[in-house]
Amino acid sequence: MKTVLDSTRCLPVVVDTSKSRYSRLQPLPLNDVRLLDGFLEPRRRVNRESTLPSQYDHLEQTGRLDNFRRAAGKIDAPFSGVYFNDSDVYKWLEAAAWTLASDPDPELERMVNVAIREIEDAQRQDGYLNTYFTFEKASKRWTDLTHKHELYCAGHLIQAAVAHHRATGSERLLNVARRFADHICDTFGPEEDGKRLGTDGHEEIEMALVELFRDTGDRKDLDQAKFFVDVRGRGLLGGRTYHGIHGLSGGREYHQDHKPLREMREMVGHAVRAVYLNAGAADLYAETGDPTLLEALERLWHNMTTRRMYVSGGIGSRYEDEAFGEDYELPNARAYTETCAAIGSVMWNWRMLAIDGDARYADLLEHTLYNAALAGLSLDGQSYFYQNPLSDSGTHRRSTWFGVACCPPNIARLLASLPGYFYGVSDDGVWVHLYAEGAAEVRLDDGRTVGLRQRTQYPWDGDIEIEVDGESDFSLMLRIPAWCEEGTAIEINEEPFDASGPPGSYAEIRRAWRPGDKVRLSLPMPVSRVECHPYVTENAGRVALMRGPLLYCVEQVDNPGFDLRDIVLPAEANFSVRSRPDLLGGVAVLETLAEIAPPDEDWAERLYRRARPRADGPRETAENITAIPYYAWANRDPGPMRVWLRSR
Amino acid sequence: MKTVLDSTRCLPVVVDTSKSRYSRLQPLPLNDVRLLDGFLEPRRRVNRESTLPSQYDHLEQTGRLDNFRRAAGKIDAPFSGVYFNDSDVYKWLEAAAWTLASDPDPELERMVNVAIREIEDAQRQDGYLNTYFTFEKASKRWTDLTHKHELYCAGHLIQAAVAHHRATGSERLLNVARRFADHICDTFGPEEDGKRLGTDGHEEIEMALVELFRDTGDRKDLDQAKFFVDVRGRGLLGGRTYHGIHGLSGGREYHQDHKPLREMREMVGHAVRAVYLNAGAADLYAETGDPTLLEALERLWHNMTTRRMYVSGGIGSRYEDEAFGEDYELPNARAYTETCAAIGSVMWNWRMLAIDGDARYADLLEHTLYNAALAGLSLDGQSYFYQNPLSDSGTHRRSTWFGVACCPPNIARLLASLPGYFYGVSDDGVWVHLYAEGAAEVRLDDGRTVGLRQRTQYPWDGDIEIEVDGESDFSLMLRIPAWCEEGTAIEINEEPFDASGPPGSYAEIRRAWRPGDKVRLSLPMPVSRVECHPYVTENAGRVALMRGPLLYCVEQVDNPGFDLRDIVLPAEANFSVRSRPDLLGGVAVLETLAEIAPPDEDWAERLYRRARPRADGPRETAENITAIPYYAWANRDPGPMRVWLRSR
Repeated sequence: MKTVLDSTRCLPVVVDTSKSRYSRLQPLPLNDVRLLDGFLEPRRRVNRESTLPSQYDHLEQTGRLDNFRRAAGKIDAPFSGVYFNDSDVYKWLEAAAWTLASDPDPELERMVNVAIREIEDAQRQDGYLNTYFTFEKASKRWTDLTHKHELYCAGHLIQAAVAHHRATGSERLLNVARRFADHICDTFGPEEDGKRLGTDGHEEIEMALVELFRDTGDRKDLDQAKFFVDVRGRGLLGGRTYHGIHGLSGGREYHQDHKPLREMREMVGHAVRAVYLNAGAADLYAETGDPTLLEALERLWHNMTTRRMYVSGGIGSRYEDEAFGEDYELPNARAYTETCAAIGSVMWNWRMLAIDGDARYADLLEHTLYNAALAGLSLDGQSYFYQNPLSDSGTHRRSTWFGVACCPPNIARLLASLPGYFYGVSDDGVWVHLYAEGAAEVRLDDGRTVGLRQRTQYPWDGDIEIEVDGESDFSLMLRIPAWCEEGTAIEINEEPFDASGPPGSYAEIRRAWRPGDKVRLSLPMPVSRVECHPYVTENAGRVALMRGPLLYCVEQVDNPGFDLRDIVLPAEANFSVRSRPDLLGGVAVLETLAEIAPPDEDWAERLYRRARPRADGPRETAENITAIPYYAWANRDPGPMRVWLRSR
Repeated sequence: MKTVLDSTRCLPVVVDTSKSRYSRLQPLPLNDVRLLDGFLEPRRRVNRESTLPSQYDHLEQTGRLDNFRRAAGKIDAPFSGVYFNDSDVYKWLEAAAWTLASDPDPELERMVNVAIREIEDAQRQDGYLNTYFTFEKASKRWTDLTHKHELYCAGHLIQAAVAHHRATGSERLLNVARRFADHICDTFGPEEDGKRLGTDGHEEIEMALVELFRDTGDRKDLDQAKFFVDVRGRGLLGGRTYHGIHGLSGGREYHQDHKPLREMREMVGHAVRAVYLNAGAADLYAETGDPTLLEALERLWHNMTTRRMYVSGGIGSRYEDEAFGEDYELPNARAYTETCAAIGSVMWNWRMLAIDGDARYADLLEHTLYNAALAGLSLDGQSYFYQNPLSDSGTHRRSTWFGVACCPPNIARLLASLPGYFYGVSDDGVWVHLYAEGAAEVRLDDGRTVGLRQRTQYPWDGDIEIEVDGESDFSLMLRIPAWCEEGTAIEINEEPFDASGPPGSYAEIRRAWRPGDKVRLSLPMPVSRVECHPYVTENAGRVALMRGPLLYCVEQVDNPGFDLRDIVLPAEANFSVRSRPDLLGGVAVLETLAEIAPPDEDWAERLYRRARPRADGPRETAENITAIPYYAWANRDPGPMRVWLRSR
């Protein structure tokens, strides 16, 4: 099986690795995948019907669109907000574009066209486009790459333009983006070419330029992405300074500019920046096959996942600098775990998965999506978390918008593009990465189209039926999640099929498929108690609860009458799983009897005391406790929440 | 016994409560106390001989003194550094002044006089003095009280001036301070008096103005301090805004400006600011007796000590905002625990102690001084911690100076004034707050002078002999530290004396003292294992080691060959205390046999896993471990350090 995507057609492919020489997997256009499930698709519907229109209103009300009108000379007003506010418009446009690809909507299209018109009109003659650097600030262009996010904004413009092009066939926004990209390519580059060195303090341009190359075939955009990845972190090491600054965007770990990517061994600095860089570098590898890039990315992925990642998949341990911490530095209540960082991790993992089809990336993609990312958005689609702590006293609540509003349109574009993450196609077969009730059409290189119909209650239940509609000879690659430690059963047309392979791999079913063939995959979903590396001191003696791909937490509203900090899970605790269609949009809750062991009364008036022999005294009681999926927390009355529970 | 201080004489009294109507205790001039011990006095000698001269060099080299010369028109140069850099000069001057009081030094005096001359010359005609707000910025005076620290700098000028006056009798700097204080009193006040509302974003002016009042007797300075305490946090509550800003310096908890002090129930915001405000409010109470102030301060002290303080006495849990966290939010490695906050806590506790002689304040003063504050300075007196974590991977090291250099001269002024914190005098007696080999002269109101000679190896040993030299009838009040839970023995002239009273109180010995009377106080100093409130999740299942007033920690350099995180103290661990005069300026180390229980090998490649039954496997070994006093950490080769150790 070879390339399924026809380059003469304009298809809504989110990350188009269909012609990437060093990418094993090719994507499906997102409109060839339909979600019909009760878990993700309702979130996507809310995204279309509520989130996107309300975000457009915010873009108008906060002056973000007016900034473009101002730059075009249409209105006389001061610039509004922060210097990177253009990016919010672009990210919203990208979200809207992917939405239009699967769900046409004239009103949304109207908003999109308004925004595109304002953007077109604001672009400078030379292709430059940033509404902050206009008029009195025009002379300051590119003078503060470290802080001013011009290339970051350009990247989001390019991503939006590619999305709009692929979703609608229109080249209007793409032309704006190409002109700006040309300007960037003319400006930055090796000094021997008469260009200037430099790169942005906030990565994003890298993956955008690779995607633009994939869309237009213009090789110089790929070269430019390579330049931006390669120069990063070079200033300091080479002992040279640029405009008096070490490093090419400040030389700090914060900007991943302390050393070249290929020499990094640890995830450091601003978490969103770090995963955006890595996603861009993965894109670059998919096109160039430079093994030193892949080695660095695998090393960094290993560091992140074995030392610097929350059990939710969230990343970023520190409020200061919104940054990764040291190894095992994972505070729960003060977790930063920015929603954007989780989304960036999904983007990075998707690209790693495409490169070699290693199920570990799909595992983390699913885990991060279902837990860290979805928690960022309220169930009503109207409010957002910037930080996603794993423990809270009841004070951390979602906001309807932010002055720095990176997260809201980011989660919107993730939801809008979600169907694109479900399947992949390789020379060997059709890959099923994610499970949800729904259908897909896969165009094969023999000219045939095969339909795949998923029937399942996933993630609430691990039974999945996949019905094949079509005739062809290929391998169906079914992901066996890493969390599925209880043994997996596969049946084909009700006959057992022995697909050996451990959790965290793809089961391969190669056969000549005929219409009506049914594969049944059973992924047992017991409640599992997860423990944490002993060096994460806060979690010592505690467990987190998971079931299937979902992380759980306890909220006070379900557990009145005792302090959540006093819950102690007995070793023999038996959990019952109860379906609650009425609750939080429909969830399965976990229930068990637990001990409630409050601190002895002597502690009321002190923080420290001479150590006493341990004894949970007569104050201990037993109570039923209820846990809900973490993604759904903070959607009811404010109150404490905890993921990690004391455990015998 | 009544006032011992003669107002006609100029005495080096650090906080002069000698005439404060609502202060039970009066201080001794610091030159009436001599420290002759091997613990504190060597630090003070380093402070005199090394720290103060090197800090003066920093003040010159970083342009801090040149800023004054520039403001006086002596040099033509741009302003150097941060807008509050004047305060570093003032704090250094205060430290130098207290030093001159006890240890005259012509070279130091020369530096002091240079600095004073520059300050005098930089003062404006109208009394205003801040070298940042000169020339092109002169019109910006008092326009950004929230951020620009003008009143904060003024406060440090006043404190330095009072110190210099009391230490040397010179009124040169005092005159500068009085003129500036007059200007401030003319500027800020009730609007009905034709003045402007407002207060500083960084508290400090409050205690300075009270002290100026104590020095000069000018009542308006006291009233002005009261104004600044009273207006704080009023803007928001009254529903009014001032210059468009809620609150009078921003309305944020960060500045303790979210509500009036008297309504606060929790220590919040920037830790240094918070304790400086409370110290100033305590000064105000000592003069005015306003019970609502004292109630608020006692409530805040209770919140701090039972919910928001490290076992070191350090305060400030968050890097972001250098702030207090929520109750029980006390991360160890990311503890902020700014050296200045510990010093501010010492200042606040000293004032609370003076008010009512409650030993709990003396306990915390000693504890914070010996652990949190002293750790801020290297043993060689040349480098400083800004943050004082309770756990470190080996990367946190002291710096020789900072761009924001508040901590270095702050620790210098604390050490310089230290003898002033040892004793107090009340109507009932002479109070001994702190113990160290040394001598004091106490002037009594009957005209007699009594000498007190302390002989002790404290803090390494709890045996203290106090010999009285003089004849008079008074109570000797000996502090029985709260940590002394093993029972205290007192002998007078080798006869047992029954001074009942629990740990954390003063034992009163009333008698007609005769020359040569000797009191022996025995404070048993076993090694104690301290446990932490169970809601501080990081410390669950762990203990800290203390002996006497000293907190201990383990450093890698003393414990080669195993990971400090793997230490598990058995319940039956017996500690030996070993005197090591060769080590770290002379310390007692703690040694014991401990288990070393590394994580099982499966953890190497993962952060999370399905929980397994707990078992410390065959990898467990036993090793001798050595703990050193926390104040002395990070004075040798860099390496991990930990205060809290796992414990059976």
